Amino acid sequence: MSELVLAIDIGGTSMKGALVDRQGHLSSRFVVPVVPGEEQESALDRLIASAKESLQSLSEGDRVIGIGCGVPGGINTFTGVCDYASNLGWKNLPVARILSDKLSLPCKIDNDANAAMLGEIQFGQEKAYRNAILLTLGTGIGGGIFVNGQLYVGNEGKGAEIGHMVIVAGGIPCPCGRKGCFETYASATALTREAKKAVEAHPESLMAEEVRKGVKIDAALPFECAKKGDEVAQQVVDQYIEYLGVGCLNLIDIFRPEVIVLSGGVSKQGENLRQPLERYLEKFGYGFGVDKAPKVDVKISRLGADIGIYGAAALGFSIGE
Amino acid sequence: MSELVLAIDIGGTSMKGALVDRQGHLSSRFVVPVVPGEEQESALDRLIASAKESLQSLSEGDRVIGIGCGVPGGINTFTGVCDYASNLGWKNLPVARILSDKLSLPCKIDNDANAAMLGEIQFGQEKAYRNAILLTLGTGIGGGIFVNGQLYVGNEGKGAEIGHMVIVAGGIPCPCGRKGCFETYASATALTREAKKAVEAHPESLMAEEVRKGVKIDAALPFECAKKGDEVAQQVVDQYIEYLGVGCLNLIDIFRPEVIVLSGGVSKQGENLRQPLERYLEKFGYGFGVDKAPKVDVKISRLGADIGIYGAAALGFSIGE
Repeated sequence: MSELVLAIDIGGTSMKGALVDRQGHLSSRFVVPVVPGEEQESALDRLIASAKESLQSLSEGDRVIGIGCGVPGGINTFTGVCDYASNLGWKNLPVARILSDKLSLPCKIDNDANAAMLGEIQFGQEKAYRNAILLTLGTGIGGGIFVNGQLYVGNEGKGAEIGHMVIVAGGIPCPCGRKGCFETYASATALTREAKKAVEAHPESLMAEEVRKGVKIDAALPFECAKKGDEVAQQVVDQYIEYLGVGCLNLIDIFRPEVIVLSGGVSKQGENLRQPLERYLEKFGYGFGVDKAPKVDVKISRLGADIGIYGAAALGFSIGE
Repeated sequence: MSELVLAIDIGGTSMKGALVDRQGHLSSRFVVPVVPGEEQESALDRLIASAKESLQSLSEGDRVIGIGCGVPGGINTFTGVCDYASNLGWKNLPVARILSDKLSLPCKIDNDANAAMLGEIQFGQEKAYRNAILLTLGTGIGGGIFVNGQLYVGNEGKGAEIGHMVIVAGGIPCPCGRKGCFETYASATALTREAKKAVEAHPESLMAEEVRKGVKIDAALPFECAKKGDEVAQQVVDQYIEYLGVGCLNLIDIFRPEVIVLSGGVSKQGENLRQPLERYLEKFGYGFGVDKAPKVDVKISRLGADIGIYGAAALGFSIGE
């Protein structure tokens, strides 16, 4: 007999779910699309209908002990309410209570990046880290902070907004109202923006040639063209690594974690991302305190696109702990 | 009968000590000067001689249960060894073991800023905060991080180097090897540097007039002249508050603490520092997550120059906890 949790990963375009056991095996997966403009309660109703089907497919002897759910937005972890999720248009939605009532199971929700951090610790690493930072390099930069063997979420769960740490005072304006935030320089969006600029400025580059052939400009393009020897693309990558490095060194100086794990779209570049970043960190002795300050592991998450599901599963298993 | 600890605050110019009880009463204070170039072992010997005298002055019935000691440098909190303290010329010095052996008491050492954070939590605030940040605005910027009701020091105690968080990528070079560190913009040293520049550029200013009268340029001068209506001084103060605000908002976005406490030289400006800083933080809704993100208290430490002693005392009382 296995104990399972229902793991739900709510994103900007779809809501994904699965049953997950303590070993990290996924079963009965489902995907529910997000319908722009839909009332928040009916979005949850559609999610609940799919979740019920998933729960009915349970093997004999298995038991679901709770629900974990990651939501992209501001979550009050004390009350289980989604205060706001701009991408979904949700506001003041008591997600934990609704899921719990309709599915008759205890439920825990958290911000998706915080959940991903827990998932990474529980399912992504062979080593049992007590202090770790997770960076999700996607549309923005999400962050998860694991300190003293616990997830750190700050007052009302509103901390760990690592993407909004300013690294260039007075720099590029961020929708959050500040200028020069880490995510305006080191997210997939930022990398794509800089690649576009380089393509316009350098029509002779391989990147520009690829674009004329119909290739889409995204975060992967500069990495791929740099591999083929395109100097313009290499410069875009180098600059990106430098900004990513500045942010990582800040986090290292503040937290001196044992590991920094990279996830999200840009992390698909694997060693082509990890190795130059590690070289940059080594150049500065992994931040302040060169003299004997302990090295920080830099890893790419192996959970890939399922990190959100694993995160929700870890939340589910943490109920009652 | 009271339980006391021997609290030792080692600084760059002097080593201060006192007996402290759980209510924060200080007695039998002593000060031992730091002698530049002295062998590290003999510096500790002089300290120990004064500490012994202090311990002999114990009132009848009182009992000293341990030693707490704050050291300005890189401390391995696991081993109690001072790996390096550049201002003192100390290297690989097993401070905890030496003090413990010579004074026959258990001893705990930590970085001075980490110790100050503990002292602030235990003796400085009426409210029992579980998540707090302490900034020491002095020669550099020291930092203490208190999360989930515990001091956070990172791997081997080498974290909480808040002063070396880069806020201006590519900015003013810092002796740590990075460029644009928080402390190169928001320490007392940075404020003094900017005041000097303003005095040179604006001989017509009140600040320049004061300097011609023989007043020393320090972190207090721009605040004092701004109070008297000097626009040049006001600009220096405003710019300082802005950089301090950028760093504080970063820490708020990352930690969402309940309180940020200011200590160190610049904090002597009291409300003239606290109020404009709080206005700056409010302008950005205390960082990312304006929508319902909880307010952060901004306070000036009332422990003043004794914060190091109180920090060491808190370390001492934490032995065996």
